[in-house]
Amino acid sequence: MTVTHRETPHVPNPSPDTDAPVGVWLNGARGSVATTAITGLLALRAGMADSTGCVTDTGMLRDAPLASWNDLVVGGHDIVDTPLEKKAESLVDSGVIPAPMLAAVRGSLPEVERNLRTGYDARTETAPLAEVVERLAGDIEEFRARNGLSRVVVINVSSTEPPADHRPEHDDLDALTRAMADPDDKALPASSVVAYAAFQAGCGFVDFTPSTGARLPALEMMAQRERVPFAGSDGKTGETLLRTALAPMFTSRALHVLSWAGVNLLGGGDGATLEDPRNARSKLSSKSGVLPALLGEDVTAPLHIDNVPDLGDHKTAWDHVSFEGFLGVRMSMQLTWSGVDSTLAAPLVLDLARLTAAAHRAGHVGPIEELGFFFKDPIGTDEHALAEQAQALAAWANALDGRGDS
Amino acid sequence: MTVTHRETPHVPNPSPDTDAPVGVWLNGARGSVATTAITGLLALRAGMADSTGCVTDTGMLRDAPLASWNDLVVGGHDIVDTPLEKKAESLVDSGVIPAPMLAAVRGSLPEVERNLRTGYDARTETAPLAEVVERLAGDIEEFRARNGLSRVVVINVSSTEPPADHRPEHDDLDALTRAMADPDDKALPASSVVAYAAFQAGCGFVDFTPSTGARLPALEMMAQRERVPFAGSDGKTGETLLRTALAPMFTSRALHVLSWAGVNLLGGGDGATLEDPRNARSKLSSKSGVLPALLGEDVTAPLHIDNVPDLGDHKTAWDHVSFEGFLGVRMSMQLTWSGVDSTLAAPLVLDLARLTAAAHRAGHVGPIEELGFFFKDPIGTDEHALAEQAQALAAWANALDGRGDS
Amino acid sequence: MTVTHRETPHVPNPSPDTDAPVGVWLNGARGSVATTAITGLLALRAGMADSTGCVTDTGMLRDAPLASWNDLVVGGHDIVDTPLEKKAESLVDSGVIPAPMLAAVRGSLPEVERNLRTGYDARTETAPLAEVVERLAGDIEEFRARNGLSRVVVINVSSTEPPADHRPEHDDLDALTRAMADPDDKALPASSVVAYAAFQAGCGFVDFTPSTGARLPALEMMAQRERVPFAGSDGKTGETLLRTALAPMFTSRALHVLSWAGVNLLGGGDGATLEDPRNARSKLSSKSGVLPALLGEDVTAPLHIDNVPDLGDHKTAWDHVSFEGFLGVRMSMQLTWSGVDSTLAAPLVLDLARLTAAAHRAGHVGPIEELGFFFKDPIGTDEHALAEQAQALAAWANALDGRGDS
Amino acid sequence: MTVTHRETPHVPNPSPDTDAPVGVWLNGARGSVATTAITGLLALRAGMADSTGCVTDTGMLRDAPLASWNDLVVGGHDIVDTPLEKKAESLVDSGVIPAPMLAAVRGSLPEVERNLRTGYDARTETAPLAEVVERLAGDIEEFRARNGLSRVVVINVSSTEPPADHRPEHDDLDALTRAMADPDDKALPASSVVAYAAFQAGCGFVDFTPSTGARLPALEMMAQRERVPFAGSDGKTGETLLRTALAPMFTSRALHVLSWAGVNLLGGGDGATLEDPRNARSKLSSKSGVLPALLGEDVTAPLHIDNVPDLGDHKTAWDHVSFEGFLGVRMSMQLTWSGVDSTLAAPLVLDLARLTAAAHRAGHVGPIEELGFFFKDPIGTDEHALAEQAQALAAWANALDGRGDS
Ligand SMILES: NC(=O)c1ccc[n+]([C@@H]2O[C@H](COP(=O)([O-])OP(=O)(O)OC[C@H]3O[C@@H](n4cnc5c(N)ncnc54)[C@H](O)[C@@H]3O)[C@@H](O)[C@H]2O)c1
Ligand SMILES: NC(=O)c1ccc[n+]([C@@H]2O[C@H](COP(=O)([O-])OP(=O)(O)OC[C@H]3O[C@@H](n4cnc5c(N)ncnc54)[C@H](O)[C@@H]3O)[C@@H](O)[C@H]2O)c1
Ligand SMILES: NC(=O)c1ccc[n+]([C@@H]2O[C@H](COP(=O)([O-])OP(=O)(O)OC[C@H]3O[C@@H](n4cnc5c(N)ncnc54)[C@H](O)[C@@H]3O)[C@@H](O)[C@H]2O)c1
Ligand SMILES: NC(=O)c1ccc[n+]([C@@H]2O[C@H](COP(=O)([O-])OP(=O)(O)OC[C@H]3O[C@@H](n4cnc5c(N)ncnc54)[C@H](O)[C@@H]3O)[C@@H](O)[C@H]2O)c1
Ligand code: NA
Ligand code: NA
Repeated sequence: MTVTHRETPHVPNPSPDTDAPVGVWLNGARGSVATTAITGLLALRAGMADSTGCVTDTGMLRDAPLASWNDLVVGGHDIVDTPLEKKAESLVDSGVIPAPMLAAVRGSLPEVERNLRTGYDARTETAPLAEVVERLAGDIEEFRARNGLSRVVVINVSSTEPPADHRPEHDDLDALTRAMADPDDKALPASSVVAYAAFQAGCGFVDFTPSTGARLPALEMMAQRERVPFAGSDGKTGETLLRTALAPMFTSRALHVLSWAGVNLLGGGDGATLEDPRNARSKLSSKSGVLPALLGEDVTAPLHIDNVPDLGDHKTAWDHVSFEGFLGVRMSMQLTWSGVDSTLAAPLVLDLARLTAAAHRAGHVGPIEELGFFFKDPIGTDEHALAEQAQALAAWANALDGRGDS
Repeated sequence: MTVTHRETPHVPNPSPDTDAPVGVWLNGARGSVATTAITGLLALRAGMADSTGCVTDTGMLRDAPLASWNDLVVGGHDIVDTPLEKKAESLVDSGVIPAPMLAAVRGSLPEVERNLRTGYDARTETAPLAEVVERLAGDIEEFRARNGLSRVVVINVSSTEPPADHRPEHDDLDALTRAMADPDDKALPASSVVAYAAFQAGCGFVDFTPSTGARLPALEMMAQRERVPFAGSDGKTGETLLRTALAPMFTSRALHVLSWAGVNLLGGGDGATLEDPRNARSKLSSKSGVLPALLGEDVTAPLHIDNVPDLGDHKTAWDHVSFEGFLGVRMSMQLTWSGVDSTLAAPLVLDLARLTAAAHRAGHVGPIEELGFFFKDPIGTDEHALAEQAQALAAWANALDGRGDS
Repeated sequence: MTVTHRETPHVPNPSPDTDAPVGVWLNGARGSVATTAITGLLALRAGMADSTGCVTDTGMLRDAPLASWNDLVVGGHDIVDTPLEKKAESLVDSGVIPAPMLAAVRGSLPEVERNLRTGYDARTETAPLAEVVERLAGDIEEFRARNGLSRVVVINVSSTEPPADHRPEHDDLDALTRAMADPDDKALPASSVVAYAAFQAGCGFVDFTPSTGARLPALEMMAQRERVPFAGSDGKTGETLLRTALAPMFTSRALHVLSWAGVNLLGGGDGATLEDPRNARSKLSSKSGVLPALLGEDVTAPLHIDNVPDLGDHKTAWDHVSFEGFLGVRMSMQLTWSGVDSTLAAPLVLDLARLTAAAHRAGHVGPIEELGFFFKDPIGTDEHALAEQAQALAAWANALDGRGDS
Repeated sequence: MTVTHRETPHVPNPSPDTDAPVGVWLNGARGSVATTAITGLLALRAGMADSTGCVTDTGMLRDAPLASWNDLVVGGHDIVDTPLEKKAESLVDSGVIPAPMLAAVRGSLPEVERNLRTGYDARTETAPLAEVVERLAGDIEEFRARNGLSRVVVINVSSTEPPADHRPEHDDLDALTRAMADPDDKALPASSVVAYAAFQAGCGFVDFTPSTGARLPALEMMAQRERVPFAGSDGKTGETLLRTALAPMFTSRALHVLSWAGVNLLGGGDGATLEDPRNARSKLSSKSGVLPALLGEDVTAPLHIDNVPDLGDHKTAWDHVSFEGFLGVRMSMQLTWSGVDSTLAAPLVLDLARLTAAAHRAGHVGPIEELGFFFKDPIGTDEHALAEQAQALAAWANALDGRGDS
């Protein structure tokens, strides 16, 4: 299946049979990705922007029963209190949000601002995790009730955490719940606390980051118990996106990849976070499964992420692929990707909100492997080839039951 | 469908039910692509090389009823008389054929040499085309008979011609046949004379070049009449291959490509031929359909082919893609491809021989659109997306009837 | 001599002994380069910008007797009447001028606007060139008188013209002057008419374009007669700048360059102008002398300039260098330059104004070969190596007599 | 001063007044660089190769009183016993030495082989360093005597060591000599033991690696005492070479470099050695002085060296430069260098042998800062700009006294 024609101007999917509105709860709501998604959504609604970059507005998903842009209501948690407006201004300065777009939607930001609450900060929190979960889930439920929302999708777009050490409680929901009552036991990393709270509030959960999130057996059990869907991990927006488009080319042409080296230069909040090697480990590990899965073997694949503050959100990635063809002859390919990270991520966050809400509504429970198209490290599947992921997404989404909760 | 695992060492398809051997008749048999294919086939058979670069030896085509490498017999036409051995030596010098490989198969080259005949040279030929066709078809038939071949596939790997001017005879086989009796009327370009001869000899025909070949209504009629298959055009081995892997990424991610500029630097015989702007026009036109088909619209796409003799067969292509994402933000991507042209082309020529022979045997008549995977300008289809082409190829080839001629 | 330390913040050269103010007359005053130079100069004066990109503010030229930024007064000719303010706004949109900078200097633009006059448009002009020259020179003299300027430097930053056909009058000032009286004889291209008018008005002339300008024996005679200096041609701001820094590396390391291929993608006014192959010929020819001069021999050097409108002023150039080292081993280098053309050109225009005024004041007559540092095709010298040009510039400028006209 | 014309075919400097022959003692004689230098020198002498890549054969050094290629005799130490011939064969396989060249000089390799001795291996040596020095110096003296050499230059081309920890003895030659008598005290790293032995044998010493070598006050004292010259450190052959050609371009154009990121991919022995982060530290530190010196300030400059075995000696380096121009506008530049490391290094090793011998002969004592042109981390100077280094080299070498020892 090929998507040969972009639909411009987009025809928003009508939503006769989705019981709108739908909530989008962003964990990390004052970050770059979140602020770009919020500003962009307001600009879309104001007719100031088209939906370039949004997969859910293409012909590929024309039959998916999705909430319209007008039906999305945004709220969220963060642990800093930078006003959205100030963050949006800094994104204007760094070329992510065009100045006229912010000007046009500035008046609507306070409405979103009112839906933001203080998140969970492990460095300062003294209450037991059980209480934290109560508070976070309570915020989300209050948001849902106050706005008359049919359902809420919680999306983690907060700073990348280090990988969590394994604990036996991670495999056993009851043990985990007991441990969380202990004020001295940080039994879960922050992203998993958020997933727990989302599930407890009866919400679908999407992890756009490489953090642990819902990827623990105990949390998967909980999603099953609460009958909610979840998806992740780590939005695929740059170098990895390219790799999942290109590596299958080598395989299908029987060309033997010998090494695939990469370096990523970026600044911004994400660059600063990933400068800490402990955080970078999560990102590097999230990226590392792609090549072996697509090439069918391990290849030499050194990979670096460097914080280059002057680049801000303008990420530059270079890849060098060395491969062998007929008669053992060596060849190579290089790629330079100059992408604006939040520009690439924000529309996918909106897509994931719409698709996860639709899945939830259609009764999908547990990991949504058909959303692997969006992720570097897709939960529930080893399929990394982009074209195949697009086909699986379309087949699934276009067949979702849009008649509402059964 | 994804090809996740390369099969190494390859398990040659057994050929119990193909009535081998099969002939491969190369038009342009003393050129770089042909000589690399010939030497490589001999090296494969001698166990000196594996089939890296050959699609027909991958798991993707594991059920296709293909002749084994041992069952292929090579012959061909050319208009120069450079000995194969000398050409192969020059390919060793330019890094296309490893020296030990030539050393190992040198003794088998005379056997192929004996199957080569003088081709049709429009600049010097004085006989009417009808006679030329008789001679060429006669050479092929003699080759088939002498070697006891079940069938022969004719593959055009000769120098790229200028585009042919349209003539009414091109649309009408009878009128064409009449015109070809006139010694003063070069009613067809050389590549089409070869296609005509192939069909007349009852052979399938593959055009690996962007020349006119079989792409005239009169010749298509003739293929139908002779009940033979044909395929083309213009092997997809470098920049265009990449484009057909990457352009669908932009489309499926709803990213709006604004321009896609390219430059190709190459030397060798192909470089020298394409230095003539009339020949280059065929190549540029063959490449030009890809982006509009994949992007759904025309984009600014300047494209150059430069003859850089010192590069020889080591083609270097640079592509610059400028695109727009969410909120109209501009981004870009660059690609540098350093490929050895004949290394990339030769295994595909072998693949096409096996697949076209299998199609012929299974009774396929006319254009084989499922072979579009191999071509820049696929006959009979507008599908250019590489992953979709791979799927179509596999579905078709694995389902071919291998029980022989009905 | 090395410039190891950037001077920041710059210390403007004091101008006790230059009889300021100095006029800068831009031919093409409403174009991108000119408007960026004008806006930038105003921003510099307003303390809104530092002089990054201006060579005359570095330690390298610390002893040159230059007019201060405050002492420059700008006027000019153009053949369109787009208001400067509107042009500046479009340069804000395309990322050349930061929005706050335009905001800060907007109030000062009308002052410059008042100094702009209608230029010479060959397509519509009916008067003989002699009259045109009178008018243009008159505009400049009036500007000088009205603003009490010590001297004026005329700088051509108008659209690139096609190369001019040679005529005998170009070698003989008297014959030329006679031909210019004939209303039907366009004896000179527009850029040369401007140079003629500059000289007639007693002004130094700089050609920042590859057009003919002052490069005719008759005009050189005139400069001698009027005792004025001139400089050019074609500002060196991107690919050629890089080549003059890099080619000497290969030479001094005895590495043998085999080919140096290049492609330039750009949009904007310059991109549109150069899309016409006649205009492009001037640019390509201006660029073509560099490699042979620096490498000591001709190399294969295909070069393209493509109009890619979406890139605007953001020029992207790719260079591929193939070279041979010890024992004949082949290696290569690639370069991608992503520069904003007017950003790179504008400060050099200001530098050239200051330096040419200083040369004029110090009594320099005829071509200033020491300004070769700034140009792709330096008048009066074959030295293209950037480091050597920088040394020559510094030695000359720092030794200029600053005590004023003798 | 510009080197505009390559001299081909080279005219070997006549050596009437150098008391030839001259010894070249390679520490690490069985490595890639050494073997390429040895094979190449033999090929030069056999007339099989020209001296492309050798700076000492260019017009730039035409007046330097250098030994001719025929007057160089090679010997050396290594700690492995791979035959030179076998190493040379592996360099043929990896594309560093052309097969016909090895064929032509194979017969002369045993002559060099006979001059090779076992080096100092810190991991296995049990004798005190004083004894090791005696042994190594003895080997060199025996080589000099046996071959009737006027002098010997010792060049370190062995594997890069980790940086050495500072010890008080490093500042005091007497204390150092005492410590070296203690069999349990490894008071010096291997490269410095070699420098010590070279000085003791009355030889000049060149460090082509980033190891400590002669760069300790105690060893510098010793060079003064023995009245011998020395030079280093770390041959400048790729990314750093480019940087020293390009960074001055930014400075002289007043462009403000914000960051300069780099990654180096290489295999071979050097790649394997540098995979150990302790060894890589020496290389990274050697490279790190260049940008601050040339840009006049520290910039963000992440730098990686990755071992990619399949690349062998074919090093690929990518650099990304982000810079700011007029009005604060951001631009960027990228570079990909595909060089064959030993091909680039070997001719410089031969150059350094000739130049250091000439310096020794002319009575130069201590560090030769004029050889900075060849090094990443030049001893005795902060000048890193390539053009200035070339000028200093030429001025110095062409003025060397060639009349012989006084
Ligand atoms: N931009 C992309 O292309 C992309 C792609 C894949 C993944 N991601 C991931 O998305 C996440 C967000 O990226 P960004 O560029 O917006 O980063 P950012 O640093 O700009 O924003 C992160 C936000 O999370 C907040 N935060 C931190 N800890 C929190 C907590 N415990 N609870 C709630 N909020 C918390 C921070 O205060 C900040 O506002 C990162 O994890 C990044 O790795 C981004
Ligand atoms: N190598 C690739 O990656 C690739 C990809 C796509 C298409 N192609 C096409 O394949 C063809 C062959 O490429 P190549 O690199 O081998 O070129 P080449 O110049 O080395 O070989 C062409 C051969 O064709 C012969 N020839 C010319 N006119 C002929 C005629 N009328 N009849 C018979 N033989 C004739 C020539 O004598 C020569 O031996 C070209 O048309 C090229 O465009 C190659
Ligand atoms: N920007 C750079 O880096 C760079 C470098 C070297 C040379 N140049 C040259 O500088 C010139 C200006 O470039 P630009 O980008 O500003 O182009 P532009 O198209 O934006 O501006 C050119 C201006 O010249 C005016 N013009 C045309 N014909 C004229 C005439 N006969 N008399 C007076 N004015 C006339 C046009 O109306 C326009 O306003 C071009 O020739 C370009 O090739 C630019
Ligand atoms: N090739 C270049 O472009 C380049 C540039 C700058 C510096 N260098 C340096 O040159 C050196 C040689 O590089 P190479 O590629 O030839 O490496 P290599 O690994 O091929 O060769 C190193 C040789 O040194 C020998 N050796 C190791 N320890 C020794 C000791 N204690 N005494 C004597 N010999 C010893 C090894 O056995 C080996 O034969 C490295 O330090 C490298 O960093 C190379
Ligand atoms: Na087609
Ligand atoms: Na000149």
